[in-house]
Amino acid sequence: MKPKIGVMIVGMSGATANTAIVGAIAGSEKEKTLGSIISTQEFKDINFISDRQIVFGGWDIVNKNAYAAALDYEIIPESIVKKQRRKLTNLYPLPGISTNYDVSETKSSDHCIQTDNLKSAIDKIKNDIDDFRARERIKTCIVVYLGPPLKQVDRDFSQVHKDDLEKMILDNSSYITSAMIYAIGSIKSNCGFIDFTPNITLEVPGIIELAEEYKVPVAGRDGNTGQSLMKTVIGDMFRIRNFKLEGWYSTNILGNNDGLVLSRSEHRKLKMQDKLGVIDPIVGYNDFEHVVDISYYMPRGDNKESWDNIDFLGWLGLSICMKINWIGRDSILAAPLVLDLIKHLYHSISNEQSGIQEHLAMYFKHPLACGVLPFTQAYEKLKTHYGICSDEEER
Amino acid sequence: MKPKIGVMIVGMSGATANTAIVGAIAGSEKEKTLGSIISTQEFKDINFISDRQIVFGGWDIVNKNAYAAALDYEIIPESIVKKQRRKLTNLYPLPGISTNYDVSETKSSDHCIQTDNLKSAIDKIKNDIDDFRARERIKTCIVVYLGPPLKQVDRDFSQVHKDDLEKMILDNSSYITSAMIYAIGSIKSNCGFIDFTPNITLEVPGIIELAEEYKVPVAGRDGNTGQSLMKTVIGDMFRIRNFKLEGWYSTNILGNNDGLVLSRSEHRKLKMQDKLGVIDPIVGYNDFEHVVDISYYMPRGDNKESWDNIDFLGWLGLSICMKINWIGRDSILAAPLVLDLIKHLYHSISNEQSGIQEHLAMYFKHPLACGVLPFTQAYEKLKTHYGICSDEEER
Amino acid sequence: MKPKIGVMIVGMSGATANTAIVGAIAGSEKEKTLGSIISTQEFKDINFISDRQIVFGGWDIVNKNAYAAALDYEIIPESIVKKQRRKLTNLYPLPGISTNYDVSETKSSDHCIQTDNLKSAIDKIKNDIDDFRARERIKTCIVVYLGPPLKQVDRDFSQVHKDDLEKMILDNSSYITSAMIYAIGSIKSNCGFIDFTPNITLEVPGIIELAEEYKVPVAGRDGNTGQSLMKTVIGDMFRIRNFKLEGWYSTNILGNNDGLVLSRSEHRKLKMQDKLGVIDPIVGYNDFEHVVDISYYMPRGDNKESWDNIDFLGWLGLSICMKINWIGRDSILAAPLVLDLIKHLYHSISNEQSGIQEHLAMYFKHPLACGVLPFTQAYEKLKTHYGICSDEEER
Amino acid sequence: MKPKIGVMIVGMSGATANTAIVGAIAGSEKEKTLGSIISTQEFKDINFISDRQIVFGGWDIVNKNAYAAALDYEIIPESIVKKQRRKLTNLYPLPGISTNYDVSETKSSDHCIQTDNLKSAIDKIKNDIDDFRARERIKTCIVVYLGPPLKQVDRDFSQVHKDDLEKMILDNSSYITSAMIYAIGSIKSNCGFIDFTPNITLEVPGIIELAEEYKVPVAGRDGNTGQSLMKTVIGDMFRIRNFKLEGWYSTNILGNNDGLVLSRSEHRKLKMQDKLGVIDPIVGYNDFEHVVDISYYMPRGDNKESWDNIDFLGWLGLSICMKINWIGRDSILAAPLVLDLIKHLYHSISNEQSGIQEHLAMYFKHPLACGVLPFTQAYEKLKTHYGICSDEEER
Repeated sequence: MKPKIGVMIVGMSGATANTAIVGAIAGSEKEKTLGSIISTQEFKDINFISDRQIVFGGWDIVNKNAYAAALDYEIIPESIVKKQRRKLTNLYPLPGISTNYDVSETKSSDHCIQTDNLKSAIDKIKNDIDDFRARERIKTCIVVYLGPPLKQVDRDFSQVHKDDLEKMILDNSSYITSAMIYAIGSIKSNCGFIDFTPNITLEVPGIIELAEEYKVPVAGRDGNTGQSLMKTVIGDMFRIRNFKLEGWYSTNILGNNDGLVLSRSEHRKLKMQDKLGVIDPIVGYNDFEHVVDISYYMPRGDNKESWDNIDFLGWLGLSICMKINWIGRDSILAAPLVLDLIKHLYHSISNEQSGIQEHLAMYFKHPLACGVLPFTQAYEKLKTHYGICSDEEER
Repeated sequence: MKPKIGVMIVGMSGATANTAIVGAIAGSEKEKTLGSIISTQEFKDINFISDRQIVFGGWDIVNKNAYAAALDYEIIPESIVKKQRRKLTNLYPLPGISTNYDVSETKSSDHCIQTDNLKSAIDKIKNDIDDFRARERIKTCIVVYLGPPLKQVDRDFSQVHKDDLEKMILDNSSYITSAMIYAIGSIKSNCGFIDFTPNITLEVPGIIELAEEYKVPVAGRDGNTGQSLMKTVIGDMFRIRNFKLEGWYSTNILGNNDGLVLSRSEHRKLKMQDKLGVIDPIVGYNDFEHVVDISYYMPRGDNKESWDNIDFLGWLGLSICMKINWIGRDSILAAPLVLDLIKHLYHSISNEQSGIQEHLAMYFKHPLACGVLPFTQAYEKLKTHYGICSDEEER
Repeated sequence: MKPKIGVMIVGMSGATANTAIVGAIAGSEKEKTLGSIISTQEFKDINFISDRQIVFGGWDIVNKNAYAAALDYEIIPESIVKKQRRKLTNLYPLPGISTNYDVSETKSSDHCIQTDNLKSAIDKIKNDIDDFRARERIKTCIVVYLGPPLKQVDRDFSQVHKDDLEKMILDNSSYITSAMIYAIGSIKSNCGFIDFTPNITLEVPGIIELAEEYKVPVAGRDGNTGQSLMKTVIGDMFRIRNFKLEGWYSTNILGNNDGLVLSRSEHRKLKMQDKLGVIDPIVGYNDFEHVVDISYYMPRGDNKESWDNIDFLGWLGLSICMKINWIGRDSILAAPLVLDLIKHLYHSISNEQSGIQEHLAMYFKHPLACGVLPFTQAYEKLKTHYGICSDEEER
Repeated sequence: MKPKIGVMIVGMSGATANTAIVGAIAGSEKEKTLGSIISTQEFKDINFISDRQIVFGGWDIVNKNAYAAALDYEIIPESIVKKQRRKLTNLYPLPGISTNYDVSETKSSDHCIQTDNLKSAIDKIKNDIDDFRARERIKTCIVVYLGPPLKQVDRDFSQVHKDDLEKMILDNSSYITSAMIYAIGSIKSNCGFIDFTPNITLEVPGIIELAEEYKVPVAGRDGNTGQSLMKTVIGDMFRIRNFKLEGWYSTNILGNNDGLVLSRSEHRKLKMQDKLGVIDPIVGYNDFEHVVDISYYMPRGDNKESWDNIDFLGWLGLSICMKINWIGRDSILAAPLVLDLIKHLYHSISNEQSGIQEHLAMYFKHPLACGVLPFTQAYEKLKTHYGICSDEEER
């Protein structure tokens, strides 16, 4: 019998998390392969776990069962959601934790614990994971961070090693974010950890050292879903075709909670950094104008829309212009990537690989360790990891 | 001293040819690298000829010098064109040849020879090349076909081998097109031959056998400039990301001569075939709707504009939509590719490579021998040919 | 008690007709006001009939009840359709009639009578109307033509007066279309007649003379729904702001039956004529390029999408460009206009107005009698008819 | 002989002002009619002054002659600019004035006088005008405000009448902006005054009272050029067609000085207010999402581009979506309106009309006195003023 794998999601009532959970449980096997990289022919010989092996749980400040949340979101068609009404109705989030960098909705929620004692907060996460493991009789557990973008922390963590980090926790340092607490608690509970958001967690050296110590694999940062994906694809074409980028203007309109939070300047900084950072490493220069706007626009709901205007120079320095209008449900783009990542991480666990899983670069806007790669190079990197020969060789 | 290379262009007064010639002669070295694949860092160690080594000549039914043509087109800024007024004013096309498949303008031109005797037509091309070589004291010569799209020939040439072909010529077969005559004449004069148009020339087995016999390299078919380029780029992303394509609607508006000719149904068939054929081999299926429209729309001139609406399915079978609006001068996209191809072909000649130059696949909508490849795979193929290590290996 | 009004629709199983019928019967009162001109405040004092007074019936070659058709179309949300399941299930079309100009699907349908005897075909229509009146105990009846666009008739009807027309019918002239038969039969049964399609019916002088003789009001031609509506709006802005139009390129992609039929060149001529004719009368000149494309593109279904590229000249002759991308269900745009027209026509009947109802110009691409008007002028014309003072006067 | 009219422009080296000046002096008569409302047939019987009667002068913080500025802007083709080289080279701005609300570039310019004494600043403006009149031997003079948007003043001026205003000036109130000083100085010099910017000048009751006292006509506020124009056009269509607006997202990218200044939040407030205020009065409700973004994006230069996404509800509450992409030189749109306004104002002066010229509403985003009107209603208002019968009556 195939083993059960526990997956605990931070922000499990959010749109992407709820979509991933509900789709994994109620979606048809065939339609769930769409948008999933590891469901292509190329990966057919790799032994990934199936959605059915996953047992979901997690935390959220919104205390709503997965069924109710899915009906409210109206992202997955009702006819699919209703297929697993009972199972979904029983899926409730545990109360979350917060610190000063959280969005105001989190801090004011009564399904959230704001603690001044960091150690006890970490212990809560560990206890929650232990309880979940015990209740579900599960050994292996992976935690996925899908909470809203936090405020940027006014402190450089790039030299904060394990000892400093432990000290900061004991000192109840006000610079520690809730995302870091989730990461630390998860790792100390021997869980793999994925950060699908632009927050600073796995970039803290001390946290990676912890992952190495506890021998758990981690992956991040910031899921590469629509607009940034296109930038790694088209930026690479520009590099190869030798078009000189003059300017790239991107605007995003969305009306879900993510849009609301990102419309607040203090919460958009990290996201912006990630969004603004994807082109330079690919084209190899930065003397072009890069503007990214995100607007909260209610009528769109989760159906995010982006418009890009790209100006570049061709032969003899003459102008060429391309505009891209992308209309797609954010959560539908993100959910299969989240599930892919869970399966990759379990594969790593099974193969006793720990620390940053660099081969997962193509899933992230800001891939840890290796940095942004052109889309197809990132893809080759993934295939190489699994010993899949490149398309070129195959032919 | 670096050798001079002769380049004779069929349709040298057309927009793309004229732009390539005038830009190569009058453009600044730095700005001419833009849009040229071999001008990137990757190819810096390969020894390609420079634009300055090229001596241009060719045929056209419009008897206009290159300077006058450039001023009429208004594609290259006047300030650049005027820098080489004298040189360009002296560049005149030889009279062209035509058969029944040519556009009516060709057939009625008085700067064009319509012959019923195919052998003498081939001899004219050979004599023209000989004269050009003698006058310019040039040994190596390459012919580039850039004439307008011909009518589709109502005969299958896929089994016409050398003997059949020679027989058809002797019989003055009405199925032989002017493009074939140019190809045969060029090859028999020991010239490399490039077909940048959707016409059937290098797909005739007999012509390839001729190229092998005369030991000349050939490359084709149909330059991969804007919209189709994007299809090989985005189609590949769909394949990798496992998005299921439902439909791709492409429309093109352009007001140059190419647009005028393509607006005539009998001349658009081959072009359409090439345009419609670029996605299937990349995504690996054909159960989607693919529509391509080309409209002659005068106000656009050479400044071609395309609009694409792409519908695809993501996770759980839910719809995602992308629209691309591309605005760019057709000739500016094509010209550096034409010059790249000339330099590649000369490299092949220097290295005594003959027949289909399969490594040039990325330059064509319908690459001979290997078929359509995803954009970055075609690029790897090119680099492999030149012994350049892949991006991935480099890292 | 308010009287019941009979409405018989030609093509009642088609998308627009079915949407109008199902929405009128099952839609909420409030949401049915949207998209309806006469539901604005301006018309609040005019006494129009309500949807509830309408009894629907009609003809179609597809023998499907209104409930089944609505579920198949998926235009109106299932939750609305199901509210009136019983009523809609009982709504069946009578068999239609056809002549040579009909689409092949019509001609080959077994729920359609192809007759060589025009008089008997007219009698069938009259009998069908009589039966409907008797069964539903209705006095006043209006017929709406919503069939697919027919092939263009190769005969000029602009001088065919009543006597000629009667003679052609007796002679079983092959130039008479099924649409004309419906029009003649309807008028002779004392029904008001609306032609919402681009077919030639009410432009035949003899048919108008018949309408005058039978004292019935008629209105046409070709509903002004999306793209053409925008042309009458923006064209007027160009005229007033003195921008010189250089070119207007319009493309439409749609995947419903209308799209399928219009993709056949012989059936698109009249539609094109109407679409191409809406700008000239408004800007007052025709020296600009006007291109209209319609492509059948299955993934869109009834969710028609159009893309317009408009080039115009501003001060000093410098170029300005506007692009419009319109995404909207065709039937949802058309249905409230159809219902509006029914109510207008009943108002005319009540007030004993017959012949062409010129005040309804704003509802049509090709308004009979007065020709195309700028959007707001057509609106003022409508208000004037009802004695509603203009916005300007009101202020 | 026709009289000469003096026109002094505040910000005469800016893109719109320079374009208006250079085009008026050097443009061809025929091409100058484009984009000008009063150059249409409708106004052919009204006696407006011609461009040739205008003598230009003005102020700017950038001390550059009109010829040099035009070459730098590259908005008007060089070939036109060079036609009047001498005349344009002699056109220099006088030094401007500034207060705390000006942009930092103004305050730090050495071609600008920052005064703490408001009365002496007003006197400077008056003296400048007197000198200009004397030097050019001109009687009638009109001042046009085209300076950059100022910071919003943190004080409500809606009740500041003439006496309060005079007192504030004597007290050297820090709330008085440079725009107000220009307005007051101009009016006290008996000049007509036009405010083409979103600044608060003519909304101060005291300034209007001054205009009445000095018997000069004034007009404002904020030129209605591209995106807002479209809103008054399409908003009106929504009202008439009874579509319910759900959301209108507008983004603007431009790389000229206007874009730079508007990218600073403290300078965009008033502009935003005007841009956000144009739809509500037309559709008659405000329960929709209206977002307007302006981004400084260098590659665009003066060639402003806007993208609008408009969501609205049609019949049965179903969604329709329209997207508009507008690409046009801002200054080319604005310049003919500025010249139109000058001619209108001179017409008012000739007819001894003073105070707010309400009939000019269609030229402004935020028309004084009457408020925003639907586009064609505003046009009717203009025609009525000149006794031109409406289109409707004409027919």
